[in-house]
Amino acid sequence: MSVLLAISGMPLDMWQREFETLLPDMNVYTPGEPFDRRAIHYAVAWRHPPRSLNGLPNLAAIFSPGAGVDHLLRDPDLPHVPIYRVVDADLTGRMSEYVVLHCLLHLRGLLRDMQNQRQRHWAPDPLQPAAGNVRVGIMGMGVLGRDAAEKLLHIGFDVAGWSRTPKDVPGIAMFAGEAQLPAFLARTDILVSLLPLTEETRGVLNKSVFSGLARNGRIGRPVIINAGRGGLQNEADILEALGDGTLGAASLDVFETEPLPVDSPLWDHPSVIITPHSAAMSDHEAISRRVASQIRAVQAGETPEGLVNVTEGY
Amino acid sequence: MSVLLAISGMPLDMWQREFETLLPDMNVYTPGEPFDRRAIHYAVAWRHPPRSLNGLPNLAAIFSPGAGVDHLLRDPDLPHVPIYRVVDADLTGRMSEYVVLHCLLHLRGLLRDMQNQRQRHWAPDPLQPAAGNVRVGIMGMGVLGRDAAEKLLHIGFDVAGWSRTPKDVPGIAMFAGEAQLPAFLARTDILVSLLPLTEETRGVLNKSVFSGLARNGRIGRPVIINAGRGGLQNEADILEALGDGTLGAASLDVFETEPLPVDSPLWDHPSVIITPHSAAMSDHEAISRRVASQIRAVQAGETPEGLVNVTEGY
Repeated sequence: MSVLLAISGMPLDMWQREFETLLPDMNVYTPGEPFDRRAIHYAVAWRHPPRSLNGLPNLAAIFSPGAGVDHLLRDPDLPHVPIYRVVDADLTGRMSEYVVLHCLLHLRGLLRDMQNQRQRHWAPDPLQPAAGNVRVGIMGMGVLGRDAAEKLLHIGFDVAGWSRTPKDVPGIAMFAGEAQLPAFLARTDILVSLLPLTEETRGVLNKSVFSGLARNGRIGRPVIINAGRGGLQNEADILEALGDGTLGAASLDVFETEPLPVDSPLWDHPSVIITPHSAAMSDHEAISRRVASQIRAVQAGETPEGLVNVTEGY
Repeated sequence: MSVLLAISGMPLDMWQREFETLLPDMNVYTPGEPFDRRAIHYAVAWRHPPRSLNGLPNLAAIFSPGAGVDHLLRDPDLPHVPIYRVVDADLTGRMSEYVVLHCLLHLRGLLRDMQNQRQRHWAPDPLQPAAGNVRVGIMGMGVLGRDAAEKLLHIGFDVAGWSRTPKDVPGIAMFAGEAQLPAFLARTDILVSLLPLTEETRGVLNKSVFSGLARNGRIGRPVIINAGRGGLQNEADILEALGDGTLGAASLDVFETEPLPVDSPLWDHPSVIITPHSAAMSDHEAISRRVASQIRAVQAGETPEGLVNVTEGY
């Protein structure tokens, strides 16, 4: 009974140590090591090296240590086994920290305050809105979206949510599907994207959506916050919308290409805040424990939480 | 029955219009107008012009439209009448917005991220702590401090409070008095000051307090956030503590002299965020309604909320 860590872009030795400790009765291999391919029953995969998941005749399940599984589903040769993803409480809390931070930052005009500071200019804004005057709209109301919505509501924001299929979330005005998207956008001053990346959502943060956002909101021009996936956004459209005043500012944690290329004009745009895909960094200890318990459940013949619907893409 | 608006530093005509609407049976005067000094029963005072509250033989009460009353109590000739202050729910919510924003900002290392952005440097921090790993300590656990504490707790921070006299606040580790100050500071990574300015608290944010803060916290060097009063802080000590590594960063909304003088070295310190005493801007409509209802209560022989203990200073 062995586990393959088909992981790139994360410190592999650290994950290997964690899983060896958590699963002492199993062998934990990395793709570069020699191992019997027939012994592999489970794979933990994150941006897996090409074909590293193929030729494993006894593979029973794949585990994604993050909530997004687009990194797996884009592999045309992905083995047809159940995929389980981790939506960890720690990761959810971190994502909400990011969303609340950036909603408050734009509510309070911190970019303006920081620019005034650089100019040694003391300029309080007597028309400063309160959170209750500002409408946040969250696209993507899964575990992450619901937690962020609840925390924004607790701070005092006026919060609505949009999801592909109708959902009921206490205290949150909910909109669903293409038909209700215009109404959702029209009441949104700050648009927060926590959508999964699927064929349906690719490029959804585009000029057409931006131009549907609220005009004359109390924070002025609308703001977007993308903490979902870079593939959701059209960066040329974001720059154009910032330039022509369709958008007032953007907080972006994810990008079409990561790391963000050094020549991207987003880097030094005065109304863009760039964070390096760190909105919800995995705590590898917490995540490893969750994946290990999912592996134990599969081993015991149970179905652990986090089963991915491959057709839906999340 | 007349009201005097002894207000400076705020748009007087705006307040006068509000009170004339809210108290249609009263005359509402400003200090520059001619009026019968014997007719004034109530004064609304904010940084009142010198001696504007004297020579009013029938003055029955003074109302402060803000939570802090140090602006009144520093007047050696202040009439001996009851003083009522407004601690408005709107103002409380705005103060908590500021506190949560700046705690999250320092938790997430946004100053570091912004510096990396200026250098087009993609540098996620794999050791990024979560809110639960970071200890916030709030000095001043009145209405504002308790609301901020509860909201920080809801986000996930590890929150403690310190007050001059013992208080019990659900979910918050409470410390009281000089005796417990060292223990409070030693468990504090982010120190939030919401104290009133009194003779006892003047200059409390000084080198001695900074050097008592937690070492080796998950956010690195400790951080201070002062949203109380400028007189609480020793700015020379703040600069020295930032320089020698006792402090890692500071968010300051208030200053020893306001507006902050253009030659202050705080302006361009890379680890200081300056906001122009705007942490909790009064919504003049909400505040006016609160003061008007306090005036109505006094007029009816009742004691409205917000009675100030002049000896305590708040």
